[in-house]
Amino acid sequence: MSYSKKSLDLHRQSRGKIEIKSKVSLKNKEDMSSAYTPGVAAVCTEIARDKQNSYTLTNRGSQVAIVSDGTAILGLGDLGAEAAMPVMEGKSIIFKEFANIDAIPLCINSTDVDEIVMFCKLIEPSFAGINLEDISSPRCFEIFEQLEKALSIPVFHDDQDGTAIVTLAAIINACRVTGRELKDLHVVVNGAGAAGIAIARLLIHARVKEVVLVDTQGSLYDGRQGMNPIKQEIAERSNKLKHQGDLQSAMVGADVFVGVSVGNIVTEAMVAGMNLSPFIFPMANPTPEIMPEEAFKAGACIVGTGRSDLPNQVNNALVFPGLFKGLLQNGIRKVTPEMKIAVADAIAHSIVPTADNLMPTTFDTQVVENIVTALAGFSSN
Amino acid sequence: MSYSKKSLDLHRQSRGKIEIKSKVSLKNKEDMSSAYTPGVAAVCTEIARDKQNSYTLTNRGSQVAIVSDGTAILGLGDLGAEAAMPVMEGKSIIFKEFANIDAIPLCINSTDVDEIVMFCKLIEPSFAGINLEDISSPRCFEIFEQLEKALSIPVFHDDQDGTAIVTLAAIINACRVTGRELKDLHVVVNGAGAAGIAIARLLIHARVKEVVLVDTQGSLYDGRQGMNPIKQEIAERSNKLKHQGDLQSAMVGADVFVGVSVGNIVTEAMVAGMNLSPFIFPMANPTPEIMPEEAFKAGACIVGTGRSDLPNQVNNALVFPGLFKGLLQNGIRKVTPEMKIAVADAIAHSIVPTADNLMPTTFDTQVVENIVTALAGFSSN
Repeated sequence: MSYSKKSLDLHRQSRGKIEIKSKVSLKNKEDMSSAYTPGVAAVCTEIARDKQNSYTLTNRGSQVAIVSDGTAILGLGDLGAEAAMPVMEGKSIIFKEFANIDAIPLCINSTDVDEIVMFCKLIEPSFAGINLEDISSPRCFEIFEQLEKALSIPVFHDDQDGTAIVTLAAIINACRVTGRELKDLHVVVNGAGAAGIAIARLLIHARVKEVVLVDTQGSLYDGRQGMNPIKQEIAERSNKLKHQGDLQSAMVGADVFVGVSVGNIVTEAMVAGMNLSPFIFPMANPTPEIMPEEAFKAGACIVGTGRSDLPNQVNNALVFPGLFKGLLQNGIRKVTPEMKIAVADAIAHSIVPTADNLMPTTFDTQVVENIVTALAGFSSN
Repeated sequence: MSYSKKSLDLHRQSRGKIEIKSKVSLKNKEDMSSAYTPGVAAVCTEIARDKQNSYTLTNRGSQVAIVSDGTAILGLGDLGAEAAMPVMEGKSIIFKEFANIDAIPLCINSTDVDEIVMFCKLIEPSFAGINLEDISSPRCFEIFEQLEKALSIPVFHDDQDGTAIVTLAAIINACRVTGRELKDLHVVVNGAGAAGIAIARLLIHARVKEVVLVDTQGSLYDGRQGMNPIKQEIAERSNKLKHQGDLQSAMVGADVFVGVSVGNIVTEAMVAGMNLSPFIFPMANPTPEIMPEEAFKAGACIVGTGRSDLPNQVNNALVFPGLFKGLLQNGIRKVTPEMKIAVADAIAHSIVPTADNLMPTTFDTQVVENIVTALAGFSSN
């Protein structure tokens, strides 16, 4: 049976994937008087006295909102808020299973930047953090920046930084397996949406030698016309050699290919044109930019995709449970680039990697633990 | 140990009262592929094809938002969004325990009518209904009216209609115990906030003989100056005898007193001035308008309060779980006055009442069942 059929059956049968559970007993009048009126009045008063008490006297301390407008669902695109729910419920059960965080899916009926920002400001009192999901680029960058300034709780856009962090972790482990170093790598990133831009930014922070970001028009370079401000920023900070041209020419001589674009657009010839024994991470879903067997045939020494049914899955579910757990436990409000690198490092070092077994699995409880420990080194901000 | 102390201890220990629970297994790669990517893409596509599928393929079908701005928390007043959370979590576990509905507390950072309306419109795709809570009058009426027009999911303001319905149920059972009829009753309602106004409206619909609504300025009558539009509407539809004066004079000759105001403002003399053997429902929390023993001393034949530690609790937790279950099961979008009367009747007839045991308890599973059955008689609207 196909994954699609299995998944549809599962969802029909269980009518979705999450439910509310009470943490207290509610079996008699006594229970009711403590959990609800009249006793609860004292709890409300205690929070009114100091709002910080909401973190310990309600579930707020482990409660995160997953906010999406449904404009960039998986590889499917803009399907609307309702259609985003199955993905957000999926994230929610991953949050619960791996980090004991209660994540509430809130798929909303607007794609307007100001309305989405306002929405997140409105819900702030009920949550300890906000995880943005599947909001299309470039709006997601503007929304994120406005929220990071406006909110006093942490905000994280998984499609940007979750993907960037796990990609860096994969490159770190590819280096560990092959004895190379980040500072020597020339990386081509194909796809300049939320993920591609965040990956480029993080790799620049991690001091790789050269990053070239490529979109459907070819390489981004300082001076290219008609780019949005986000692409302009990356163009100025990357592509030091000012490469101009298409993906094939951008890949010539590169050490690493990272794909967050569409399936089947990288050929064996393109991989063969790269530097010797390149790392190939074709992470488009569901179809990778090139299938692993072809990449290996063309000389790749390490290949990782986004797919769970292929070896070396580069999966951002490795990031967000532990990251949020670390943020909440350590009272961290803003995720800095240094934290992102530390988290990537923590994920990478959760396993002794080999070429065939590059990444830890999400089921390895050590991953979340290592991320939390890594973030404990940063003071609250 | 006091309720307050017990309740604070309980909340500290459990860190709030709700959490997320997964309805599916997430123990291995296979589970992950069905609950999340790649399988989930088919579920998203199925909902994009027809948004109604979100009711059966996600938890939306049993998911309700509890929205509050924290301006009218219990009897405590405007304590802000954070301080409202313990009450909303309490409602949430009552929803789950008695009706298996998953209710998400969303306490928001604005008291602006337009922003609250916009917020509810934004979250519509994620929920099957909206339960407004503890929003102060008269804003709550405007918010409710705008939402009822704008949304295609049902909206209910518990402080208004929950209280009105359970009050009507109590009066129905007082009639059953004493052999009287609604059409013969002269009712004085003290307190013209959300609850008082909704009670007056519903009693008028239920064709009681006379309703007089009283606020701190005395009886509302057509022609009184300086009333807001909601009070003006009630003034025109009630108080046929155009009584003018304070609560004491309004109560002279009345058959029923309903208090949704503040504690200790009704004296034995005021009860003694009513018609013979009146029904007294002093429902202010935590201190009733008059204590039951005083009311009985002054001639009351039936007394019910809002308190769980006194006999005959008139508790709107009897209403909202069954009401929402009935709305969701029957695809009802708008709660009409006829439905409210049918629900009150269903609650009343869940017990064979006596003067000392007037109302069913929330733990009687028959209550929810009877409400659902009553609502099944109404077609979707």
